[in-house]
Amino acid sequence: MKRVRILIKPKEGLLDPQGRAVEEMLRDNGFNAQHVRVGKLVEMEVPKGEDVKSIVEKFIINPLIEDYEIEEL
Amino acid sequence: MKRVRILIKPKEGLLDPQGRAVEEMLRDNGFNAQHVRVGKLVEMEVPKGEDVKSIVEKFIINPLIEDYEIEEL
Repeated sequence: MKRVRILIKPKEGLLDPQGRAVEEMLRDNGFNAQHVRVGKLVEMEVPKGEDVKSIVEKFIINPLIEDYEIEEL
Repeated sequence: MKRVRILIKPKEGLLDPQGRAVEEMLRDNGFNAQHVRVGKLVEMEVPKGEDVKSIVEKFIINPLIEDYEIEEL
């Protein structure tokens, strides 16, 4: 088996209301945070030869609004 | 400024209903995914000297139920 990590973020240029909310909250509390983006993280174990890309694109992300990266842990 | 990535996961041993749901859905679709965990990802730009650890622990995670890692991008 191999353990993989999938990092899922809103597509660049799309509105990121969660990111905006976190940015405003941090600024209200005196922190100079900028370009805050909030996404999802999925980690799992799959058989070594598994095609993780197709799993992600078919079942885990919404390709219209999300980009992703796959890391092998 | 520096760009940081915060990886937030449910604490080990705590129930992860989202992870369980994704695992079952993938298995129902014929994939042998195991130990699926679902968390959050926050990326942001902060001044170089900023204490990201305290930002995260005070404002971004729930320390009772979440663990986190900080990566500098």
